[in-house]
Amino acid sequence: MTTSAPTERTRVRRRTERARYDRDVCCAIIDEALVCHVGFAIDGQPYVMPATHARIGDQLYLHGSAASRMLRTLASGVPVCVTMTLLDGLVLARAARTHSMNYRSVVVLGTAIEVVDPQEQMAALKALIEHALPGRWRDVRPPTDRELRETAVVRLALSEMSAKVRSGPPMDGDGDLTQPCWAGELPLQLTASSPMPDARLTAGIEAPDSITRYRRR
Amino acid sequence: MTTSAPTERTRVRRRTERARYDRDVCCAIIDEALVCHVGFAIDGQPYVMPATHARIGDQLYLHGSAASRMLRTLASGVPVCVTMTLLDGLVLARAARTHSMNYRSVVVLGTAIEVVDPQEQMAALKALIEHALPGRWRDVRPPTDRELRETAVVRLALSEMSAKVRSGPPMDGDGDLTQPCWAGELPLQLTASSPMPDARLTAGIEAPDSITRYRRR
Repeated sequence: MTTSAPTERTRVRRRTERARYDRDVCCAIIDEALVCHVGFAIDGQPYVMPATHARIGDQLYLHGSAASRMLRTLASGVPVCVTMTLLDGLVLARAARTHSMNYRSVVVLGTAIEVVDPQEQMAALKALIEHALPGRWRDVRPPTDRELRETAVVRLALSEMSAKVRSGPPMDGDGDLTQPCWAGELPLQLTASSPMPDARLTAGIEAPDSITRYRRR
Repeated sequence: MTTSAPTERTRVRRRTERARYDRDVCCAIIDEALVCHVGFAIDGQPYVMPATHARIGDQLYLHGSAASRMLRTLASGVPVCVTMTLLDGLVLARAARTHSMNYRSVVVLGTAIEVVDPQEQMAALKALIEHALPGRWRDVRPPTDRELRETAVVRLALSEMSAKVRSGPPMDGDGDLTQPCWAGELPLQLTASSPMPDARLTAGIEAPDSITRYRRR
Protein backbone atom coordinates (compact mmCIF):
# COMPACT_ATOMS: atom_id res chain seq x y z
CA MET A 1 0.00 0.00 0.00
CA THR A 2 1.38 3.39 -0.97
CA THR A 3 0.61 6.28 1.30
CA SER A 4 1.26 9.68 -0.20
CA ALA A 5 1.08 12.99 1.57
CA PRO A 6 -1.93 15.05 0.54
CA THR A 7 -1.42 18.41 -1.12
CA GLU A 8 -2.85 21.53 0.45
CA ARG A 9 -5.77 21.13 -1.96
CA THR A 10 -6.55 17.49 -1.24
CA ARG A 11 -5.98 17.50 2.52
CA VAL A 12 -9.28 16.65 4.18
CA ARG A 13 -10.21 19.60 6.38
CA ARG A 14 -13.31 18.42 8.25
CA ARG A 15 -13.82 15.05 9.90
CA THR A 16 -10.14 14.31 9.45
CA GLU A 17 -10.61 10.92 11.12
CA ARG A 18 -12.37 9.93 7.87
CA ALA A 19 -9.46 10.92 5.62
CA ARG A 20 -7.57 8.30 3.63
CA TYR A 21 -4.52 9.10 1.57
CA ASP A 22 -3.52 5.55 0.62
CA ARG A 23 -3.41 5.12 -3.12
CA ASP A 24 -4.89 1.62 -2.88
CA VAL A 25 -7.92 2.87 -0.94
CA CYS A 26 -8.50 5.63 -3.49
CA CYS A 27 -8.11 3.29 -6.47
CA ALA A 28 -10.48 0.70 -5.00
CA ILE A 29 -13.20 3.36 -4.72
CA ILE A 30 -12.53 4.60 -8.25
CA ASP A 31 -12.71 1.05 -9.57
CA GLU A 32 -15.94 0.17 -7.77
CA ALA A 33 -17.83 3.34 -8.72
CA LEU A 34 -19.80 3.06 -11.96
CA VAL A 35 -20.22 6.80 -12.33
CA CYS A 36 -18.16 9.81 -11.39
CA HIS A 37 -19.05 13.49 -11.19
CA VAL A 38 -16.85 15.78 -13.23
CA GLY A 39 -16.49 19.41 -12.15
CA PHE A 40 -15.21 22.19 -14.40
CA ALA A 41 -15.96 25.87 -14.74
CA ILE A 42 -17.01 27.91 -17.79
CA ASP A 43 -16.98 31.70 -17.38
CA GLY A 44 -16.78 31.28 -13.60
CA GLN A 45 -19.84 29.01 -13.41
CA PRO A 46 -19.02 25.52 -12.11
CA TYR A 47 -20.71 22.59 -13.81
CA VAL A 48 -20.92 19.08 -12.36
CA MET A 49 -21.70 16.37 -14.88
CA PRO A 50 -22.15 12.63 -14.33
CA ALA A 51 -19.89 10.49 -16.47
CA THR A 52 -18.46 7.01 -16.72
CA HIS A 53 -14.77 6.50 -16.14
CA ALA A 54 -12.06 3.87 -16.11
CA ARG A 55 -8.63 3.65 -14.56
CA ILE A 56 -5.51 2.26 -16.21
CA GLY A 57 -2.70 2.34 -13.68
CA ASP A 58 -2.21 5.93 -12.61
CA GLN A 59 -4.42 7.43 -15.29
CA LEU A 60 -8.14 8.10 -15.19
CA TYR A 61 -9.98 8.07 -18.52
CA LEU A 62 -13.21 9.82 -19.47
CA HIS A 63 -14.89 9.75 -22.85
CA GLY A 64 -17.75 11.24 -24.75
CA SER A 65 -18.81 12.60 -28.07
CA ALA A 66 -16.16 14.64 -29.85
CA ALA A 67 -18.85 17.36 -29.96
CA SER A 68 -19.43 17.28 -26.18
CA ARG A 69 -18.96 20.60 -24.47
CA MET A 70 -17.62 18.87 -21.37
CA LEU A 71 -15.00 16.91 -23.30
CA ARG A 72 -13.96 19.96 -25.34
CA THR A 73 -13.68 22.01 -22.14
CA LEU A 74 -11.64 19.34 -20.35
CA ALA A 75 -9.35 18.90 -23.35
CA SER A 76 -8.62 22.63 -23.32
CA GLY A 77 -6.65 22.12 -20.13
CA VAL A 78 -8.83 23.77 -17.49
CA PRO A 79 -8.57 22.66 -13.84
CA VAL A 80 -10.91 19.74 -13.19
CA CYS A 81 -12.21 17.83 -10.20
CA VAL A 82 -13.54 14.29 -10.53
CA THR A 83 -15.38 12.80 -7.57
CA MET A 84 -16.59 9.24 -7.03
CA THR A 85 -18.98 8.43 -4.18
CA LEU A 86 -20.14 5.02 -2.97
CA LEU A 87 -23.04 5.08 -0.57
CA ASP A 88 -22.81 2.26 1.97
CA GLY A 89 -25.68 2.97 4.31
CA LEU A 90 -27.80 5.22 6.47
CA VAL A 91 -26.50 5.84 9.98
CA LEU A 92 -29.60 6.12 12.12
CA ALA A 93 -28.76 7.75 15.41
CA ARG A 94 -30.84 8.73 18.42
CA ALA A 95 -30.22 12.42 17.99
CA ALA A 96 -30.97 14.30 14.76
CA ARG A 97 -27.48 15.80 14.94
CA THR A 98 -25.65 12.46 14.88
CA HIS A 99 -27.46 11.05 11.85
CA SER A 100 -25.04 10.38 9.06
CA MET A 101 -24.29 8.23 6.04
CA ASN A 102 -21.69 5.55 5.63
CA TYR A 103 -19.84 6.22 2.39
CA ARG A 104 -16.54 6.06 0.57
CA SER A 105 -15.58 8.94 -1.71
CA VAL A 106 -12.56 10.07 -3.66
CA VAL A 107 -11.77 13.55 -4.93
CA VAL A 108 -9.27 13.79 -7.80
CA LEU A 109 -7.85 17.16 -8.86
CA GLY A 110 -5.88 17.87 -11.97
CA THR A 111 -5.86 18.88 -15.58
CA ALA A 112 -7.02 16.63 -18.38
CA ILE A 113 -5.16 15.89 -21.60
CA GLU A 114 -6.85 14.80 -24.80
CA VAL A 115 -5.87 11.33 -25.92
CA VAL A 116 -4.98 11.49 -29.61
CA ASP A 117 -3.07 8.24 -30.10
CA PRO A 118 -5.58 5.75 -31.60
CA GLN A 119 -4.03 2.83 -29.70
CA GLU A 120 -4.34 4.59 -26.35
CA GLN A 121 -7.85 5.71 -27.31
CA MET A 122 -8.78 2.10 -28.07
CA ALA A 123 -7.23 0.92 -24.80
CA ALA A 124 -9.26 3.52 -22.91
CA LEU A 125 -12.51 2.51 -24.60
CA LYS A 126 -11.77 -1.11 -23.75
CA ALA A 127 -11.07 -0.13 -20.14
CA LEU A 128 -14.35 1.81 -19.99
CA ILE A 129 -16.34 -1.22 -21.15
CA GLU A 130 -14.42 -3.60 -18.88
CA HIS A 131 -14.86 -1.21 -15.95
CA ALA A 132 -18.64 -1.53 -16.19
CA LEU A 133 -18.69 -5.24 -16.99
CA PRO A 134 -15.48 -7.28 -16.77
CA GLY A 135 -15.10 -9.62 -19.72
CA ARG A 136 -17.47 -7.69 -21.98
CA TRP A 137 -14.92 -6.35 -24.46
CA ARG A 138 -14.14 -9.68 -26.11
CA ASP A 139 -17.83 -10.22 -26.92
CA VAL A 140 -18.69 -6.92 -28.57
CA ARG A 141 -17.98 -5.39 -31.95
CA PRO A 142 -15.02 -3.02 -31.42
CA PRO A 143 -15.11 0.62 -32.52
CA THR A 144 -14.44 1.40 -36.17
CA ASP A 145 -11.98 4.08 -37.21
CA ARG A 146 -14.90 6.40 -37.85
CA GLU A 147 -16.38 5.74 -34.40
CA LEU A 148 -12.97 6.46 -32.87
CA ARG A 149 -12.85 9.80 -34.67
CA GLU A 150 -16.31 10.67 -33.35
CA THR A 151 -15.27 9.84 -29.78
CA ALA A 152 -13.27 12.12 -27.53
CA VAL A 153 -11.12 10.54 -24.81
CA VAL A 154 -9.28 12.49 -22.13
CA ARG A 155 -7.02 11.31 -19.36
CA LEU A 156 -6.18 12.75 -15.99
CA ALA A 157 -3.20 11.70 -13.88
CA LEU A 158 -4.20 10.23 -10.51
CA SER A 159 -1.48 12.21 -8.76
CA GLU A 160 -3.51 14.52 -6.52
CA MET A 161 -6.37 12.78 -4.77
CA SER A 162 -7.77 11.93 -1.38
CA ALA A 163 -10.51 9.72 -0.04
CA LYS A 164 -12.99 10.07 2.75
CA VAL A 165 -14.56 7.05 4.39
CA ARG A 166 -17.21 6.73 7.07
CA SER A 167 -18.22 3.34 8.36
CA GLY A 168 -19.67 1.91 11.50
CA PRO A 169 -22.45 2.67 13.95
CA PRO A 170 -23.98 5.98 15.04
CA MET A 171 -21.90 8.02 17.47
CA ASP A 172 -24.52 9.26 19.90
CA GLY A 173 -23.42 10.82 23.15
CA ASP A 174 -24.10 8.90 26.34
CA GLY A 175 -26.84 11.36 27.23
CA ASP A 176 -28.87 10.32 24.18
CA LEU A 177 -28.77 6.55 24.76
CA THR A 178 -32.12 6.58 26.55
CA GLN A 179 -33.92 8.14 23.55
CA PRO A 180 -36.58 5.48 22.86
CA CYS A 181 -35.90 4.93 19.18
CA TRP A 182 -34.19 2.27 17.11
CA ALA A 183 -30.58 3.10 16.29
CA GLY A 184 -28.06 1.43 14.05
CA GLU A 185 -26.96 1.12 10.46
CA LEU A 186 -29.11 0.42 7.42
CA PRO A 187 -26.68 -0.98 4.83
CA LEU A 188 -27.29 0.12 1.24
CA GLN A 189 -25.79 -1.32 -1.89
CA LEU A 190 -26.18 -1.12 -5.63
CA THR A 191 -27.68 -4.40 -6.77
CA ALA A 192 -28.60 -5.84 -10.14
CA SER A 193 -31.93 -7.45 -10.85
CA SER A 194 -32.71 -9.87 -13.68
CA PRO A 195 -31.25 -8.89 -17.04
CA MET A 196 -33.83 -7.78 -19.62
CA PRO A 197 -33.00 -9.15 -23.07
CA ASP A 198 -33.23 -6.77 -26.00
CA ALA A 199 -36.35 -7.42 -28.10
CA ARG A 200 -34.07 -7.98 -31.09
CA LEU A 201 -31.80 -10.48 -29.34
CA THR A 202 -30.92 -13.49 -31.51
CA ALA A 203 -32.81 -16.54 -30.25
CA GLY A 204 -30.75 -18.93 -28.17
CA ILE A 205 -28.22 -16.46 -26.79
CA GLU A 206 -28.20 -16.65 -23.00
CA ALA A 207 -26.77 -13.99 -20.71
CA PRO A 208 -23.42 -15.14 -19.26
CA ASP A 209 -22.79 -15.46 -15.52
CA SER A 210 -20.95 -12.13 -15.52
CA ILE A 211 -24.34 -10.54 -16.24
CA THR A 212 -26.75 -12.81 -14.37
CA ARG A 213 -24.55 -12.75 -11.26
CA TYR A 214 -23.42 -9.15 -11.59
CA ARG A 215 -22.00 -7.71 -8.40
CA ARG A 216 -20.11 -4.48 -8.09
CA ARG A 217 -17.60 -5.44 -5.42
CA MET B 1 -46.79 19.35 -14.53
CA THR B 2 -44.95 22.59 -15.06
CA THR B 3 -42.67 22.83 -18.03
CA SER B 4 -40.27 25.71 -17.95
CA ALA B 5 -37.95 26.80 -20.72
CA PRO B 6 -34.29 26.06 -19.98
CA THR B 7 -31.82 28.89 -19.73
CA GLU B 8 -28.83 29.01 -22.03
CA ARG B 9 -26.87 27.45 -19.17
CA THR B 10 -29.23 24.56 -18.42
CA ARG B 11 -30.22 23.68 -21.98
CA VAL B 12 -29.04 20.13 -22.67
CA ARG B 13 -26.62 20.31 -25.58
CA ARG B 14 -25.85 16.68 -26.36
CA ARG B 15 -28.33 13.82 -26.61
CA THR B 16 -31.15 16.33 -26.57
CA GLU B 17 -33.67 13.49 -26.83
CA ARG B 18 -32.76 12.76 -23.20
CA ALA B 19 -33.49 16.30 -21.97
CA ARG B 20 -36.33 16.95 -19.52
CA TYR B 21 -37.30 20.42 -18.41
CA ASP B 22 -40.45 19.53 -16.45
CA ARG B 23 -40.21 20.68 -12.88
CA ASP B 24 -41.94 17.51 -11.64
CA VAL B 25 -39.40 15.26 -13.36
CA CYS B 26 -36.51 17.25 -11.89
CA CYS B 27 -38.01 17.28 -8.38
CA ALA B 28 -38.70 13.53 -8.43
CA ILE B 29 -35.02 12.87 -9.18
CA ILE B 30 -33.91 15.31 -6.46
CA ASP B 31 -36.24 13.65 -3.96
CA GLU B 32 -35.14 10.10 -4.77
CA ALA B 33 -31.41 10.79 -4.70
CA LEU B 34 -29.80 10.29 -1.28
CA VAL B 35 -26.67 12.19 -2.17
CA CYS B 36 -25.87 15.08 -4.44
CA HIS B 37 -22.58 16.40 -5.77
CA VAL B 38 -21.91 20.06 -5.06
CA GLY B 39 -19.59 21.99 -7.37
CA PHE B 40 -17.95 25.28 -6.48
CA ALA B 41 -14.64 26.91 -7.33
CA ILE B 42 -11.93 28.31 -5.06
CA ASP B 43 -9.17 30.31 -6.76
CA GLY B 44 -10.24 28.90 -10.12
CA GLN B 45 -10.04 25.27 -8.99
CA PRO B 46 -13.39 23.48 -9.12
CA TYR B 47 -14.24 21.16 -6.23
CA VAL B 48 -16.99 18.53 -6.32
CA MET B 49 -18.11 17.32 -2.92
CA PRO B 50 -20.72 14.69 -2.05
CA ALA B 51 -23.41 15.94 0.29
CA THR B 52 -26.88 15.15 1.49
CA HIS B 53 -29.73 17.44 0.52
CA ALA B 54 -33.44 18.01 0.96
CA ARG B 55 -36.06 19.90 -0.97
CA ILE B 56 -38.81 22.06 0.52
CA GLY B 57 -40.96 23.33 -2.31
CA ASP B 58 -38.77 25.35 -4.64
CA GLN B 59 -35.77 25.45 -2.32
CA LEU B 60 -32.91 23.00 -2.03
CA TYR B 61 -31.20 22.76 1.37
CA LEU B 62 -27.67 21.63 2.17
CA HIS B 63 -26.08 21.50 5.60
CA GLY B 64 -22.80 20.86 7.32
CA SER B 65 -20.56 22.01 10.08
CA ALA B 66 -20.40 25.76 10.57
CA ALA B 67 -16.63 25.30 10.16
CA SER B 68 -16.97 23.49 6.81
CA ARG B 69 -15.06 25.12 3.98
CA MET B 70 -17.74 24.05 1.52
CA LEU B 71 -20.55 25.60 3.54
CA ARG B 72 -18.60 28.80 4.16
CA THR B 73 -17.76 29.04 0.46
CA LEU B 74 -21.36 28.44 -0.60
CA ALA B 75 -22.65 30.97 1.94
CA SER B 76 -20.31 33.60 0.48
CA GLY B 77 -22.49 33.69 -2.62
CA VAL B 78 -20.32 32.03 -5.25
CA PRO B 79 -21.92 30.35 -8.27
CA VAL B 80 -22.73 26.73 -7.47
CA CYS B 81 -23.84 23.63 -9.34
CA VAL B 82 -25.61 20.77 -7.58
CA THR B 83 -26.05 17.52 -9.48
CA MET B 84 -28.04 14.42 -8.54
CA THR B 85 -27.60 11.18 -10.47
CA LEU B 86 -29.63 7.98 -10.19
CA LEU B 87 -28.15 4.99 -11.93
CA ASP B 88 -30.84 2.71 -13.34
CA GLY B 89 -28.87 0.12 -15.26
CA LEU B 90 -26.21 -0.97 -17.67
CA VAL B 91 -27.16 -0.86 -21.33
CA LEU B 92 -25.32 -3.78 -22.88
CA ALA B 93 -25.20 -3.39 -26.63
CA ARG B 94 -23.66 -5.46 -29.40
CA ALA B 95 -21.18 -2.76 -30.39
CA ALA B 96 -18.75 -1.15 -27.94
CA ARG B 97 -19.88 2.26 -29.21
CA THR B 98 -23.55 1.76 -28.31
CA HIS B 99 -22.94 0.67 -24.72
CA SER B 100 -24.52 3.10 -22.31
CA MET B 101 -26.11 3.51 -18.91
CA ASN B 102 -29.71 4.10 -18.03
CA TYR B 103 -29.83 7.00 -15.61
CA ARG B 104 -31.74 10.03 -14.43
CA SER B 105 -29.81 13.15 -13.50
CA VAL B 106 -30.56 16.76 -12.60
CA VAL B 107 -28.23 19.73 -12.79
CA VAL B 108 -29.16 22.74 -10.63
CA LEU B 109 -27.35 26.06 -11.07
CA GLY B 110 -27.55 29.04 -8.80
CA THR B 111 -26.21 30.88 -5.80
CA ALA B 112 -26.69 29.71 -2.25
CA ILE B 113 -27.88 31.83 0.67
CA GLU B 114 -27.07 31.06 4.28
CA VAL B 115 -30.14 30.25 6.36
CA VAL B 116 -29.97 32.31 9.55
CA ASP B 117 -33.55 32.09 10.81
CA PRO B 118 -33.56 29.32 13.48
CA GLN B 119 -37.07 28.21 12.49
CA GLU B 120 -36.11 27.79 8.85
CA GLN B 121 -32.87 26.11 9.93
CA MET B 122 -34.84 23.65 12.05
CA ALA B 123 -37.29 23.02 9.18
CA ALA B 124 -34.35 22.30 6.87
CA LEU B 125 -32.75 19.87 9.33
CA LYS B 126 -36.09 18.11 9.69
CA ALA B 127 -36.40 17.92 5.91
CA LEU B 128 -32.88 16.49 5.63
CA ILE B 129 -33.69 13.70 8.10
CA GLU B 130 -37.08 13.02 6.52
CA HIS B 131 -35.51 13.01 3.05
CA ALA B 132 -33.29 10.06 4.03
CA LEU B 133 -35.91 8.24 6.07
CA PRO B 134 -39.53 9.43 6.05
CA GLY B 135 -41.05 9.43 9.53
CA ARG B 136 -37.71 9.52 11.32
CA TRP B 137 -37.90 13.06 12.70
CA ARG B 138 -40.61 12.36 15.26
CA ASP B 139 -38.54 9.58 16.82
CA VAL B 140 -35.24 11.36 17.33
CA ARG B 141 -33.96 13.91 19.79
CA PRO B 142 -34.18 17.28 17.98
CA PRO B 143 -31.18 19.62 17.73
CA THR B 144 -30.42 21.84 20.71
CA ASP B 145 -29.80 25.57 20.33
CA ARG B 146 -26.09 24.89 20.61
CA GLU B 147 -26.21 22.20 17.91
CA LEU B 148 -28.10 24.62 15.66
CA ARG B 149 -25.36 27.22 16.12
CA GLU B 150 -22.73 24.65 15.21
CA THR B 151 -24.60 23.72 12.03
CA ALA B 152 -24.55 25.70 8.80
CA VAL B 153 -27.56 25.48 6.50
CA VAL B 154 -27.71 27.01 3.04
CA ARG B 155 -30.49 27.10 0.51
CA LEU B 156 -30.53 27.34 -3.24
CA ALA B 157 -33.58 28.26 -5.32
CA LEU B 158 -34.61 25.52 -7.75
CA SER B 159 -35.14 28.04 -10.50
CA GLU B 160 -32.50 27.05 -13.04
CA MET B 161 -32.28 23.31 -13.58
CA SER B 162 -32.61 20.59 -16.16
CA ALA B 163 -32.76 16.82 -16.15
CA LYS B 164 -31.38 14.19 -18.45
CA VAL B 165 -32.92 10.74 -18.63
CA ARG B 166 -31.92 7.62 -20.54
CA SER B 167 -34.04 4.53 -20.36
CA GLY B 168 -34.73 1.52 -22.51
CA PRO B 169 -32.79 -0.99 -24.57
CA PRO B 170 -29.52 -0.66 -26.47
CA MET B 171 -29.72 1.18 -29.77
CA ASP B 172 -27.54 -0.93 -32.01
CA GLY B 173 -27.62 -0.35 -35.73
CA ASP B 174 -29.16 -3.07 -37.89
CA GLY B 175 -25.71 -4.07 -39.10
CA ASP B 176 -24.70 -5.10 -35.59
CA LEU B 177 -27.68 -7.32 -34.83
CA THR B 178 -25.82 -10.45 -35.91
CA GLN B 179 -23.00 -9.90 -33.39
CA PRO B 180 -23.19 -13.15 -31.39
CA CYS B 181 -23.41 -11.66 -27.89
CA TRP B 182 -26.14 -11.13 -25.36
CA ALA B 183 -27.68 -7.67 -25.50
CA GLY B 184 -30.16 -5.91 -23.29
CA GLU B 185 -30.49 -4.02 -20.04
CA LEU B 186 -29.13 -4.96 -16.65
CA PRO B 187 -31.28 -3.02 -14.17
CA LEU B 188 -29.46 -1.60 -11.16
CA GLN B 189 -30.97 -0.20 -8.01
CA LEU B 190 -29.96 0.95 -4.58
CA THR B 191 -31.27 -1.62 -2.12
CA ALA B 192 -31.21 -1.93 1.63
CA SER B 193 -30.18 -5.09 3.41
CA SER B 194 -31.02 -6.06 7.02
CA PRO B 195 -30.65 -3.23 9.52
CA MET B 196 -27.73 -3.65 11.94
CA PRO B 197 -28.71 -2.59 15.46
CA ASP B 198 -26.28 -0.39 17.37
CA ALA B 199 -24.43 -2.37 20.06
CA ARG B 200 -25.81 0.08 22.64
CA LEU B 201 -29.43 -0.22 21.49
CA THR B 202 -31.89 -0.48 24.39
CA ALA B 203 -33.19 -4.06 24.61
CA GLY B 204 -36.65 -4.58 23.21
CA ILE B 205 -36.64 -1.78 20.64
CA GLU B 206 -37.43 -3.19 17.20
CA ALA B 207 -36.73 -1.44 13.92
CA PRO B 208 -39.96 -0.06 12.41
CA ASP B 209 -41.23 -1.07 8.96
CA SER B 210 -39.90 2.17 7.51
CA ILE B 211 -36.42 0.77 8.18
CA THR B 212 -36.90 -2.97 7.65
CA ARG B 213 -38.80 -2.37 4.40
CA TYR B 214 -36.75 0.61 3.26
CA ARG B 215 -37.12 1.37 -0.42
CA ARG B 216 -35.94 4.49 -2.15
CA ARG B 217 -38.73 4.94 -4.69
